[in-house]
Amino acid sequence: MIMIDVQSILKQLTIEEKAALCIGSGPWTTFNIGRPEVPAITLADGPHGLRRSRDIDASFCQSLPATCFPTASCLASTWDRNLLYTMGKALAEEAIAQDVDLLLGPGVNMKRSPLGGRNFEYFSEDPYLAGEMAIGMANGIQEKGVGATIKHFAANSQEFKRYLLNSEIDERTLREIYLPAFEMAIKKAKPWAVMSAYNKVNGVACAENTELLSILRDEWGFDGLVMSDWAAVHNLVKAIGAGLDLEMHGPQLVDMHALVDAVRSGALDEKVLDRSVSRILSTIHKASKTPKGGSFDIESHHDLAGRIAGEGMVLLKNNGVLPLKDHGRIAVIGLSAIHPYFQGGGASRVNPTKVAIPLDELRRQAPGTRFMYADGYTNDGEFRQDMIDEATGIAQSAEAAILFIALPPLTESEGYDRADIDLPRQQVALIRSVTAVQPNTVIVLNNGAPVAMGEWIGDTAAVLEAWMMGQAGGKAIADILYGHVNPSGKLAETFPLKLSDTPAYLNWPSKANIDTSTVRYGEGLFIGYRYYDATDTPVLFPFGHGLSYTTFSYSNPRTTASRFKDADGTTVTVDVTNTGKVAGKEIVQVYVHDQKSSLIRPPKELKGFVKVELHPGETKTVSIPLDYRSFAYYHPSYKRWVTEDGDFDILIGASSADIRQHITVHLQSGSKLRNHLNHNSTVREWLEDSRARVILEPIILGIIGRMCTMAGSADSKNGAMNMTGDIMDAPLFVVFNYFERSIPMLPEKMMHYLIGKVNE
Amino acid sequence: MIMIDVQSILKQLTIEEKAALCIGSGPWTTFNIGRPEVPAITLADGPHGLRRSRDIDASFCQSLPATCFPTASCLASTWDRNLLYTMGKALAEEAIAQDVDLLLGPGVNMKRSPLGGRNFEYFSEDPYLAGEMAIGMANGIQEKGVGATIKHFAANSQEFKRYLLNSEIDERTLREIYLPAFEMAIKKAKPWAVMSAYNKVNGVACAENTELLSILRDEWGFDGLVMSDWAAVHNLVKAIGAGLDLEMHGPQLVDMHALVDAVRSGALDEKVLDRSVSRILSTIHKASKTPKGGSFDIESHHDLAGRIAGEGMVLLKNNGVLPLKDHGRIAVIGLSAIHPYFQGGGASRVNPTKVAIPLDELRRQAPGTRFMYADGYTNDGEFRQDMIDEATGIAQSAEAAILFIALPPLTESEGYDRADIDLPRQQVALIRSVTAVQPNTVIVLNNGAPVAMGEWIGDTAAVLEAWMMGQAGGKAIADILYGHVNPSGKLAETFPLKLSDTPAYLNWPSKANIDTSTVRYGEGLFIGYRYYDATDTPVLFPFGHGLSYTTFSYSNPRTTASRFKDADGTTVTVDVTNTGKVAGKEIVQVYVHDQKSSLIRPPKELKGFVKVELHPGETKTVSIPLDYRSFAYYHPSYKRWVTEDGDFDILIGASSADIRQHITVHLQSGSKLRNHLNHNSTVREWLEDSRARVILEPIILGIIGRMCTMAGSADSKNGAMNMTGDIMDAPLFVVFNYFERSIPMLPEKMMHYLIGKVNE
Repeated sequence: MIMIDVQSILKQLTIEEKAALCIGSGPWTTFNIGRPEVPAITLADGPHGLRRSRDIDASFCQSLPATCFPTASCLASTWDRNLLYTMGKALAEEAIAQDVDLLLGPGVNMKRSPLGGRNFEYFSEDPYLAGEMAIGMANGIQEKGVGATIKHFAANSQEFKRYLLNSEIDERTLREIYLPAFEMAIKKAKPWAVMSAYNKVNGVACAENTELLSILRDEWGFDGLVMSDWAAVHNLVKAIGAGLDLEMHGPQLVDMHALVDAVRSGALDEKVLDRSVSRILSTIHKASKTPKGGSFDIESHHDLAGRIAGEGMVLLKNNGVLPLKDHGRIAVIGLSAIHPYFQGGGASRVNPTKVAIPLDELRRQAPGTRFMYADGYTNDGEFRQDMIDEATGIAQSAEAAILFIALPPLTESEGYDRADIDLPRQQVALIRSVTAVQPNTVIVLNNGAPVAMGEWIGDTAAVLEAWMMGQAGGKAIADILYGHVNPSGKLAETFPLKLSDTPAYLNWPSKANIDTSTVRYGEGLFIGYRYYDATDTPVLFPFGHGLSYTTFSYSNPRTTASRFKDADGTTVTVDVTNTGKVAGKEIVQVYVHDQKSSLIRPPKELKGFVKVELHPGETKTVSIPLDYRSFAYYHPSYKRWVTEDGDFDILIGASSADIRQHITVHLQSGSKLRNHLNHNSTVREWLEDSRARVILEPIILGIIGRMCTMAGSADSKNGAMNMTGDIMDAPLFVVFNYFERSIPMLPEKMMHYLIGKVNE
Repeated sequence: MIMIDVQSILKQLTIEEKAALCIGSGPWTTFNIGRPEVPAITLADGPHGLRRSRDIDASFCQSLPATCFPTASCLASTWDRNLLYTMGKALAEEAIAQDVDLLLGPGVNMKRSPLGGRNFEYFSEDPYLAGEMAIGMANGIQEKGVGATIKHFAANSQEFKRYLLNSEIDERTLREIYLPAFEMAIKKAKPWAVMSAYNKVNGVACAENTELLSILRDEWGFDGLVMSDWAAVHNLVKAIGAGLDLEMHGPQLVDMHALVDAVRSGALDEKVLDRSVSRILSTIHKASKTPKGGSFDIESHHDLAGRIAGEGMVLLKNNGVLPLKDHGRIAVIGLSAIHPYFQGGGASRVNPTKVAIPLDELRRQAPGTRFMYADGYTNDGEFRQDMIDEATGIAQSAEAAILFIALPPLTESEGYDRADIDLPRQQVALIRSVTAVQPNTVIVLNNGAPVAMGEWIGDTAAVLEAWMMGQAGGKAIADILYGHVNPSGKLAETFPLKLSDTPAYLNWPSKANIDTSTVRYGEGLFIGYRYYDATDTPVLFPFGHGLSYTTFSYSNPRTTASRFKDADGTTVTVDVTNTGKVAGKEIVQVYVHDQKSSLIRPPKELKGFVKVELHPGETKTVSIPLDYRSFAYYHPSYKRWVTEDGDFDILIGASSADIRQHITVHLQSGSKLRNHLNHNSTVREWLEDSRARVILEPIILGIIGRMCTMAGSADSKNGAMNMTGDIMDAPLFVVFNYFERSIPMLPEKMMHYLIGKVNE
């Protein structure tokens, strides 16, 4: 263990040495500048399992075996903070064993469209849920002395043209949707590092984006390391100036020299470079305190991966066929029953220590059952009716069928987006053919993001979303199908009926839109359930949905206060009862609805949740605190989070579409928002000022009266009301100009008088 | 008649006189600077009838009687260029009679949402249809020596906070959706004037928007007068600098003095002021050539207004009840049968010369029928079950019912938007009650923009959309109901099923979103049928829909060429046959679908139409020319309209949803687009250059091979294909950096070599 004193070392370093520390020395290491007190540190992917390159200097090379945990879609569907914490610790143990200082994960970007290639590596369409999951995992990793890296900062919701694309997002949407998961993780888990994204945000590359990086550093107080995504820096001098510290991958020697030159020529203040170097040294310092090497427990980590998979799989539909009874003959159909699809492509791809095969696990669980297997499809994309016929034949002769459906390998990967949400034609035909002859057909899905099911789901007996389930997922499937594990996962993202229903559908960069260089986040705040709620668009399965082998009831909802100050918040409490016959876990979700606000808000937003385990008949009381931010929204005019006095509905649900209880509370805002009244202020804004109102009210009433008469609408209450509306939202100065004769002085003079009055 | 020589007068004017010419002297006149050769000219609203103030110095005052023609929604539903031309001439005759030089219309803004308060004054959700209608009307007005004013330039699609709101629109959307109707009118009708809009576009007030005004002047060659909307100028010096000429309304003396000061201080070049003054003088010159005064033919204009209304009303539904037979007793229900709702509120409100009352007109047409009348509702917004009961009673006792439904007065007006698309609660209850007892119920709707009908339309026998039908619309209704006029109007805008289905729903400024200062046109190109088509959203009635008392068939579609150069275009020809028993008119619509393009395009766009009259059994051959712009789209990277080689479908339809024939043609593009290859160019772009391809192809194939092997996807065609996709859309330089070992020199050197090569 080498102890370093950042400030004293900094003083000894030459400009060249400092610049060298700001670039990687290879794809996975920082520069070794030849000073023993400043050792190189080692980085490795990824968010659900280590990808420690055998050859530390190779970008593409097989990695050392590591546990492949379920990918983030599955993790988020557990809604279990502690489980992610436990997994984080396991990841760190493997990192330590493989001499890795900094783990490149978790990824907390929002799932703006189900097409996003990297969605399986991201948690949710909801910033709060994603943030909570990231906190759990990052805390677990860092608990063991390994660094976590929150990525990709920010608005990296598509892969297409990822090195070049500009994400165009309005400030409020950025603040309310695309940044909060980062903000939560930064504030609550204090990760060692943040990785900036490839894309531009509002015209500026994330690695060089002063605005984004000052939100991170100045507003959120992040004092850790910011590294670039691999090959994402266009101009290192600019990037260091903006607040980036480390350009990866390395070695970009041209950039290093440019950095030296910039300091020598005075184009970059050396103090700015020192700021970055200090942060790199501090990271090295933290890394040096953790002993490295040794080994990790392959078996227990494999079991943990299986346990997590079992908690994250989502039972989407069940007509009662599950859990499986003692059947004599079961048809198991689908290549993914023997070649499981358990992870995606790209940087997160893990070389698993071992892999549980679903078919083997089923056989282990039910030794008395005869399992008959057929491939059903190949992964080469060809249509093979003979395989469908064979599978249908064995399904017909069995008492039940388990149909393993998975996207073809590498359909989902870093580097490219999906073109659609469809299953392969052969698989759809297979499902239709099998379900036509076998009513007890259970579909097991392996995919990292939603697939369309409208065409066939009606004919199935049950559907289990088993996700990209990690290396031990095969066992979790068998556990759930046989009821040894009661499914408790719930969707962390909406499953749409069809692609054209999705919020980003018309603003999506893709091969069908190949010349695009800007992706406009035109749907604004309204992604995921926020969109489907607001537009009343029917979905296949709503956000938060997931079935169990038992049932739960919610009763006695209450809050600690029904009127409270925004800063105090309130705590929601509800009693949850297991009303079924087996033990199970329920995820209680709390959404907040603002009854009235000055800017449009989503109909409801997730602001709290808890996962609770209950024996049959047992009741537990759960409490969920709601804080300031549970009620606030970001106001782009004031450039801050604000609350407004008024009533809010607290919605307690088993999913976003299954609200079981609700309570209305009254919030007292502490936001002191000052309107600076001027020529552009509307009549409405002027009348809100009590000093102005005294003078203005009679004048405005006179004008309204005159206007209504003039417009011939005096006979119509409705017309008069509307006329009033127009005047209220017009600038006072414009109204004065129109109705010069109704005011006591010239319009410009009258404005001066009023402006003086309210600023007294 | 005073003849003036612009340049010689300009030389004689003082700066003060020039500045005075740039502001109105009152709400409706330019300044009289005391030189007989520069008389003041007179302006008057509006787009569908003259609103010449009795007191020319008063902003709000009753206007002189004039013919109230149908409003623009109805006009556009005629799809009849000649009829609008004829109406334009009539408007000009009234202007001449009332000493008006410049008419403030037509308005060609796009209907982005059915809520837009001023929608009734605008033509369509489609830029081509709006442009064609504007050309017809403006040509008619100017034929008589009166000036037309195309307004409101630009993107003035909402009224809420209209003096302050910023319309945020990407360049392509502006060019393809919000500007073309202006462009067409400017180029083909050469209007005397353009009125700039209240709102900002991308942060700059339209009156001061250099970008917009240079598109108008430099690109489109507009050399006429640009005036501001009333009280829309924030800074006259800036506005004059940007290309505005005249600030209305007047007199804004403070602004005039500021203009003088700016010239004196050198802040504004006098030549810039002269440019505006010349344009004002030229307009005065044009106006001086037309003799003024006299009278117009009230009766023939009233008849014309009725004829236009009859062509614009749209028969939405008819189960055969229409045309009406000889009934003994007909119930006529609804206040708007005796108090017709025939125009909207605001600047376009006309003081009609006379008004045709629907009930009277019905009685005139069928003297043998007993018409029993009940109000059914009041306009005061109160719910009155007794009125519903009374109406239901008479409906029950009749052989048929005609139910007049209209939005309450001034629901639709300049100055404010609608809050929803609903009919009043009482009217809905009335319809439900009447249709429950009377199966032969015909609904006659008066409104300027779509209303929701889903709740009740299934129970009706027929629905006639009679619009804001102008003063003579009452007669047109009777003519259509009795079959003396065969309805031939078709919708110029989609009727949605519900508000939440509309494209701008989540990006709409309103009282429910009161703090908004920017309206983001987040749906981009996709407004109107472009949106419903692209998202596969069901609608109540599609764009272009309208029934007739006869039927038409389309046959023998052909084009002059099946392969052609973009500049040459092609002409589509089709035979249309009246297959029914009465004479009628059909509107043949031609849409173009681009099979493949480099940027996403709407599924189809209207590019031509013709209205043709046919006797029973008659066939006519109609031809519709398609030009360069029928196939082009605006490319924001090249900042120009482009075409691309490829196949286009020409869709010939009776509505946007009722395509009867289609032809596929091949277009050869003449767009010479040069990609400047550089560090940011993608592999795909590089490979498109034949010189680069020779060198790069083997290198890239090697890299792809290596990458697939590394990623373990060699066993999967699908994976390999996807990997290839990623590399193709990555910058070549990034790929070189990753695969340094696969290229013959250092990445930076290799790039230099290639850039040199392709620019040889």
